[in-house]
Amino acid sequence: MNVQAMVFGNMGDTSATGVAFTRNPATGENLFYGEWLVNAQGEDVVAGIRTPSPLNDDTKNDQNMHLHSMQEAMPGTYKELWDIRNILEKSFHDMLDIEFTIQEGTLYMLQCRTGKRTGTAALNMAMDMLHEKLIDEKTVVMRVDPAQLDELLHPICDPAAEKKVKPVVKGLPAGPGAAVGKVVFNAEDAVAWFRKGEKVILLREETNPEDVEGMRAAEGILTARGGMTSHAALVARGWGKCCIVGAGALHVEASKKIAKITGSDIVIKEGDVLTLNGTKGNVYTGAVPLMDATENPRFKEFMTIVDKFRKMGVRTNAETPEDATIARNYGAEGIGLFRTEHMFYGVGSEVPLFLLRKMILSANETERRKALDELFSHVKKDMKATMAAMDGLPVTFRLLDPPLHEFVPQGAEKQAELAKALGIKKEDIAKRGEALHESNPMMGHRGVRLGITFPEISEMQVRAIFESALELIKEGKHPHPEIMVPVTGEVAELDYTKKVVDRVYEEVCKKFNVKAIEYKYGTMIEIPRACLLSDRMAKSAEFFSFGTNDLTQMTFGFSRDDTGGFLHDYLDKKILAADPFQTIDQDGVGQLIKMSVEKGRATRPDLKVGICGEQGGDPASVEFCFRTGLTYVSCSPFRVPIARLAAAQASIKFGK
Amino acid sequence: MNVQAMVFGNMGDTSATGVAFTRNPATGENLFYGEWLVNAQGEDVVAGIRTPSPLNDDTKNDQNMHLHSMQEAMPGTYKELWDIRNILEKSFHDMLDIEFTIQEGTLYMLQCRTGKRTGTAALNMAMDMLHEKLIDEKTVVMRVDPAQLDELLHPICDPAAEKKVKPVVKGLPAGPGAAVGKVVFNAEDAVAWFRKGEKVILLREETNPEDVEGMRAAEGILTARGGMTSHAALVARGWGKCCIVGAGALHVEASKKIAKITGSDIVIKEGDVLTLNGTKGNVYTGAVPLMDATENPRFKEFMTIVDKFRKMGVRTNAETPEDATIARNYGAEGIGLFRTEHMFYGVGSEVPLFLLRKMILSANETERRKALDELFSHVKKDMKATMAAMDGLPVTFRLLDPPLHEFVPQGAEKQAELAKALGIKKEDIAKRGEALHESNPMMGHRGVRLGITFPEISEMQVRAIFESALELIKEGKHPHPEIMVPVTGEVAELDYTKKVVDRVYEEVCKKFNVKAIEYKYGTMIEIPRACLLSDRMAKSAEFFSFGTNDLTQMTFGFSRDDTGGFLHDYLDKKILAADPFQTIDQDGVGQLIKMSVEKGRATRPDLKVGICGEQGGDPASVEFCFRTGLTYVSCSPFRVPIARLAAAQASIKFGK
Repeated sequence: MNVQAMVFGNMGDTSATGVAFTRNPATGENLFYGEWLVNAQGEDVVAGIRTPSPLNDDTKNDQNMHLHSMQEAMPGTYKELWDIRNILEKSFHDMLDIEFTIQEGTLYMLQCRTGKRTGTAALNMAMDMLHEKLIDEKTVVMRVDPAQLDELLHPICDPAAEKKVKPVVKGLPAGPGAAVGKVVFNAEDAVAWFRKGEKVILLREETNPEDVEGMRAAEGILTARGGMTSHAALVARGWGKCCIVGAGALHVEASKKIAKITGSDIVIKEGDVLTLNGTKGNVYTGAVPLMDATENPRFKEFMTIVDKFRKMGVRTNAETPEDATIARNYGAEGIGLFRTEHMFYGVGSEVPLFLLRKMILSANETERRKALDELFSHVKKDMKATMAAMDGLPVTFRLLDPPLHEFVPQGAEKQAELAKALGIKKEDIAKRGEALHESNPMMGHRGVRLGITFPEISEMQVRAIFESALELIKEGKHPHPEIMVPVTGEVAELDYTKKVVDRVYEEVCKKFNVKAIEYKYGTMIEIPRACLLSDRMAKSAEFFSFGTNDLTQMTFGFSRDDTGGFLHDYLDKKILAADPFQTIDQDGVGQLIKMSVEKGRATRPDLKVGICGEQGGDPASVEFCFRTGLTYVSCSPFRVPIARLAAAQASIKFGK
Repeated sequence: MNVQAMVFGNMGDTSATGVAFTRNPATGENLFYGEWLVNAQGEDVVAGIRTPSPLNDDTKNDQNMHLHSMQEAMPGTYKELWDIRNILEKSFHDMLDIEFTIQEGTLYMLQCRTGKRTGTAALNMAMDMLHEKLIDEKTVVMRVDPAQLDELLHPICDPAAEKKVKPVVKGLPAGPGAAVGKVVFNAEDAVAWFRKGEKVILLREETNPEDVEGMRAAEGILTARGGMTSHAALVARGWGKCCIVGAGALHVEASKKIAKITGSDIVIKEGDVLTLNGTKGNVYTGAVPLMDATENPRFKEFMTIVDKFRKMGVRTNAETPEDATIARNYGAEGIGLFRTEHMFYGVGSEVPLFLLRKMILSANETERRKALDELFSHVKKDMKATMAAMDGLPVTFRLLDPPLHEFVPQGAEKQAELAKALGIKKEDIAKRGEALHESNPMMGHRGVRLGITFPEISEMQVRAIFESALELIKEGKHPHPEIMVPVTGEVAELDYTKKVVDRVYEEVCKKFNVKAIEYKYGTMIEIPRACLLSDRMAKSAEFFSFGTNDLTQMTFGFSRDDTGGFLHDYLDKKILAADPFQTIDQDGVGQLIKMSVEKGRATRPDLKVGICGEQGGDPASVEFCFRTGLTYVSCSPFRVPIARLAAAQASIKFGK
């Protein structure tokens, strides 16, 4: 047991208390940063009730410049604190969070620990400390939490546009990046507006734990009171969310849902649009244009160092040239998952979807082949454009995956339109739709099973892949297509599909008068049986890609669409530690993945193994993939840098 | 290469050809049994075009007694054949199928192989040969194919009732057992009537391969022509189906859908009810009462020998005292699966189903507990009666398994009735039903997940189990309840449920003023993750029972309800060798089972391990279970003897 004498900061004007960070925890700037209060105890600083005074000149801002800094009021003791700050950084090679009390002129250090920081600050400090020779490159990589990198990928105010506008009020830069949204004055409204699809800025006098859900729902948080260590600042920083605190000129009348500004006629009302620059602490009325943060040269420099240590590849899941380009700019080394069916959803899907429906509702193979022929050019167009955007890098095309009945039109009007175009009765469409209905479509007639029953569907897609590749080659490009068969659980499925691929290959080679097209043939591993029999699967497949969404569904027997009824109880009652759809269940699903990799490589030592489930962008899952010997992870474009960093850290931690 | 001189049976009246079995292949009787034709070649006998002559006196019957037997026509050659028959049986210790030709008085043996036989014949021959000291008990057990045992469990004509009726026509006893059904005159009608739910007797002049589907659909087959080796006889024997051939007195006018009988005024018309005794060859008009074949003393004697070699236990899946009693008579050593939810289906389910629906549609825990209290006595009644029927043997109660929405009433009328009883709006019932709807209910809110969300549901069932057991003990009985938690994939689910069990246990002990109730706590293993983590599962579970239906669904990603769309293609295209829902997929699902047994026993060496999926009655699966070290298999009551035999054969084959 440790018994320690207490010191008092509230013993008159020669006593004080303070909290400081050896560098700015929001921006990472190499400036001693802190707050203090004369004649007070520590809790007075962090409670957010009194706006604390600035520690020094570097901590002064528009809101607190009228208050005495410690540097001014107690220069001798400040010098003592400054020296301690320097000794601590040189000893610990990191930014520290310190607490101190001055009792009747004597400085006492209460606490010293590694300081929490935003992702922006983490990145900036790491790069600064590298240049200051405080840390080496390996340490730089380890200093940024991959999850925090997310916030760096958040938008910032476009500097050019920001120059043209003047802030209406200023506060402390408590959470980085920028946010644009409509003002709401309480947490309930924030949640309600968010649910309606609105982007909101939560404006509060100050926040407390009851506001957390509203803070989560908001794009940005703005408070009139509180310092950098207040509730709002701590919570927002933890999330990497844009936040400005202590904007003292704001006079919030929450009950009236308005805020007035000292020295200004402007009244901010509910629903008004505001822009926050959380890195500077500036609040603007109206929407200031935002821009991508990745043009930041320090970010680029950091990611270059990251890639020096990274051994595992990082690809992206994308099916349009636009997404492929974004991902490539983020450092993706190819596409790990191109979902053919995505062309049937969303913008521009009308014509291909109509043709797909014709195909689905065909009464026989002849009709089906006719509809597939019409569909062919649409499928090829998307495939070719995406391969062009990924020129020189591999693109993995997954053959059609979802159950067909998903595409049968449901409304009477749509059914009538389709019936007319097909020259069949409306009732027949409803009937065919019913015939396709399944009790558990997730485990029904989908993926490779479609291709076994209707080989002509696989044939059309494979032809589109090969013809796209050959057209690109003639245009001087370097396509690397990979054909991936989904939902397999038995090598005979792969062998059967391979025969279709081989036949189309011959036909296309003949048509284009070429001898060979470079391509790979492989499979998704997303059915438990495929893991159990991976030694056989690898006889046919040249690569595996773990579909961890479906593999998790089947390993747990959890339908992802239906976990709403019980998963929250599982997490609340601590039956599961985490949602296995967010992060790979290493104990269970992970066993199957390990087994699959080992068995697959026993058959084919050079087997390429990737992952294309959504967990591919989750840092803990990326680390698991590295340890399991995967060749690459594939994730959504915006998570590519996170995966790159997580992969580099895994290389460093597990020294391979 | 073997070049052999041909012999001719068609060189006049001193030449002949024949086919014989060393014993009767339909009944197993130790009588030399065969057919022959003078001045003919082998194919004339089997073609069914000429009704062959009897080989000897023992082969004579009403239809062929006017024809010359070989024993009469060629006594010397017959004696030669008889001696060969005896030498063969003494050499091979089995019933043989032989073919011979007599060319101008000289006997040539063409072929000799193990003879195909019905299950009845296999059993009778094995028992006879044991008593003749031709074979030992081990060989007796191996002589009967477990799949063939099925036919022995088919009903026979009640001997007492049969004595009172006279056959209208007689034929050859080509397939064993008895059949009652309505007469149809072609295969198409047989299939069509069968689909309407009718039991039919297919009556044909003779059958050919085009009739196979109709033969399959029929309860029994009756033909006017053909011998014991005719198409109808061969096919029916292969299936163990009741069949009478060569009923020569029948004059079939298929186009008119009638059959006349020589020497009788009776005209059999389409739809008339006939009874066939396939063991004797007797045809009766009207329905003769049938009875269970297991009272057969030879069957009992055989099963006693079987059990001398069997090491693995055999239980049954049953949830009523009636089924429990049937299974016990068939040798079941307990219940491996009592499905609580079965009381909500079928006869007598109205009241419990109504109460269950009340429970499901409760708005909160208080309402739910009230409904559960009402349901309690119904659940207890079923549980107690079944345990009483299985007195002294273990009964495994599975907690409620299916998703609740299955029980929400669908029709407007039923919904209105329930709304009235609950005092809520009809719309609320529809709404609550919709809220419970799931995309993939097989992988949704079911099994243990219900008990995690609504522990009061588990509580009610567990209370019913313990109170039933204590009431039975007070009545002087010896209940051995086992509580089985379904759909688990994580030991924390078992631990959570165990707390509920422990609490109820204490309460019931107190209420009944007893110190302890003997029971076991365990789990279904039907989720792949449960297999992967069986070492942990066994920390909480005292027994495992493989639910191979669901385990197969999730290991393959096959929804059993939806395989109609593709499984036939998988079997036709030889992508799968067998339907994994019929027989355990040893390569894939089997790996998980093996892993689970090994891991489970590593944690708890005395872990009891069973199987309660439908494959538990499939002989190949039973053998697999034995090799994998299972404690018992559990199957439907009528498959219990099959499982016993398969288990004994596995012990003999794998020498454990």
